[in-house]
Amino acid sequence: MNTSNYFSFNTLQQFIENALVSQGLPQEDASQVSKLMAEADLQGSDGHGIIRLPQYIKRIRSGGINKHPKIRVVHERAAMAVVDGDNGMGHLVVTRAVDLAIEKASEAGVAWVNTRFSNHAGPASLYSRRALEHNMLALYFAVGNANHLPPWGGMEMLLSTNPISVAIPTKNEPPVVLDMATTVAAYGKVKAKAKRGEMMPAGWMIDRQGEPLLDPNKASEGFLLPIGDHKGYGLALIVGLLAGTLGGAAMGRDVVDFNADHVTTTNTGQAILVIDLAAFGDPEKFKHEVDKLICDIKNSERLPGIDRIWLPGEQSHEKRNRYMTDGIPVATGLVNELNLLATEIGIDALTNISDTYDHIV
Amino acid sequence: MNTSNYFSFNTLQQFIENALVSQGLPQEDASQVSKLMAEADLQGSDGHGIIRLPQYIKRIRSGGINKHPKIRVVHERAAMAVVDGDNGMGHLVVTRAVDLAIEKASEAGVAWVNTRFSNHAGPASLYSRRALEHNMLALYFAVGNANHLPPWGGMEMLLSTNPISVAIPTKNEPPVVLDMATTVAAYGKVKAKAKRGEMMPAGWMIDRQGEPLLDPNKASEGFLLPIGDHKGYGLALIVGLLAGTLGGAAMGRDVVDFNADHVTTTNTGQAILVIDLAAFGDPEKFKHEVDKLICDIKNSERLPGIDRIWLPGEQSHEKRNRYMTDGIPVATGLVNELNLLATEIGIDALTNISDTYDHIV
Repeated sequence: MNTSNYFSFNTLQQFIENALVSQGLPQEDASQVSKLMAEADLQGSDGHGIIRLPQYIKRIRSGGINKHPKIRVVHERAAMAVVDGDNGMGHLVVTRAVDLAIEKASEAGVAWVNTRFSNHAGPASLYSRRALEHNMLALYFAVGNANHLPPWGGMEMLLSTNPISVAIPTKNEPPVVLDMATTVAAYGKVKAKAKRGEMMPAGWMIDRQGEPLLDPNKASEGFLLPIGDHKGYGLALIVGLLAGTLGGAAMGRDVVDFNADHVTTTNTGQAILVIDLAAFGDPEKFKHEVDKLICDIKNSERLPGIDRIWLPGEQSHEKRNRYMTDGIPVATGLVNELNLLATEIGIDALTNISDTYDHIV
Repeated sequence: MNTSNYFSFNTLQQFIENALVSQGLPQEDASQVSKLMAEADLQGSDGHGIIRLPQYIKRIRSGGINKHPKIRVVHERAAMAVVDGDNGMGHLVVTRAVDLAIEKASEAGVAWVNTRFSNHAGPASLYSRRALEHNMLALYFAVGNANHLPPWGGMEMLLSTNPISVAIPTKNEPPVVLDMATTVAAYGKVKAKAKRGEMMPAGWMIDRQGEPLLDPNKASEGFLLPIGDHKGYGLALIVGLLAGTLGGAAMGRDVVDFNADHVTTTNTGQAILVIDLAAFGDPEKFKHEVDKLICDIKNSERLPGIDRIWLPGEQSHEKRNRYMTDGIPVATGLVNELNLLATEIGIDALTNISDTYDHIV
């Protein structure tokens, strides 16, 4: 049986902040990145939160991240911009891009912002969700930081899991938040399976002979499968062109495998589309319509054996609420790894930070 | 063996135009709609071209289409608009929306336009492709005109096949044109199977017991399956919210099944996003990068038994070229149906229009 330790949001956030500050990131930047990383874990995106810290630290220490980036706008019109992240932490670059898109959308009604020279920024929904409090909806696209997907029928991994996230405001219901890789499974989920010592279901990956690959520790010997066969390949390609090529960021053979290479500038690209509901009529009316649709879906007839119909983002929403109260589970293997990291970089162990929950499952 | 008759683009276009004019559509509108419908067949979208004519005619004759719509902009900002189609033919409404988006994008860099009170408008890629000649790329979303998809785990068909199309300009290669239903198969493909007297593969539809449904003539007894299980459900829902709810068009239980009901205003919604490459740098550089990626993909290593790797839109592109020369195949069953329709509405039979190809397969 796999065990987890439970930690508060503040504990995870403080640990991450300490780690980043220890490596020379400015306090304010470390605070911003750590909040987003801990939020990833809070919403159950356990493949994209604190699990990534050792890798980020390794990249920072190897000189693969600019600790003092000059993030700037290099192209701009009323409804668009391209933000050059100067190889800073992706969380900082994408936050800047999203906030600029929100600002522009509030005038033009709609705005699209690309990033270039950004880096891995965690789960897509962290950024699409940012629009919600402004009565805006958002679509987010990103180029994944390692190619795990060949074109349909191919063997060369020219594409990544290139995720799509969409966040749509509601009135009383939880917001509709889609956050999906264009592959059957995200690579972060493969990593999480490996950390938990579990096998993958068939259909997630195949090996180079086209046979199902089940052991997540052998992930490097195979590749992920796209959703809907050729359709998912098409989606992954389009997302890469929109989030990467359009903004002048890496795509295809230019994508750096940041699992293997901690030094080369990744030139990661992301893209965000923000739509201001107020431009389309009364936002309250829109949100009421979305609530109504959600209720229709939740209360609709179910297939035999199905207890409940879920909306996109609803499980994350429930996890967020539950983890706020009960603490955020972190696999014991990962806790040990993080404590070793803490020793290595000279910060307090995760389990030594004050408000740790001692609840062990 | 199923047979097809082959017709020129002009023959199909002229036949459709004659049919629409016979029902009182203004000549110019009939010409515009017929060109788009024949273009659907020309690119191999055989579920969305002339096959839909009998249904369109039935709807027009039943008073379900406004033959003299006042198509107008009801909301507008620098980078967005909502176009009210006044229940005109969908092809007219969407063309207006796309052209407005192109115009706005040339200033603001990016523009998003929704339609409301539109109607079925044929294959999504007809409209995303429109941006290509302007050195722009486009994303198109639509609410399908009949609900065939339940939420994941559900039995009530609250969602449609809600397609996505994306068109991306290239330099020397065929443009990248994705055109996909968020279901494993589009309903138009189910209809085309029925017309050709073929069975469907397992995985396209299930019946109300959750068992595979293979006979396309029994399509009304089951529902389509989404790509990637819950992910495709999420995509279909999001597309419906963006293309329908956002613009004030029908979604969920408000969607009218236009296969069964030829009278009720459908209030169909579509949405188009247009992005002007020039705002992001040199469009030639972008197109060169896309070409390079296409070549990398096409020349990459293939799985055993795979002869060729395709890009999205490449098969349509090849069909378009082939059909220009050899004629466009129309199933003999459909030809007979169209000739009966011609008699009924008093126009020349399809097979009597001058430049018919006599090539029968």
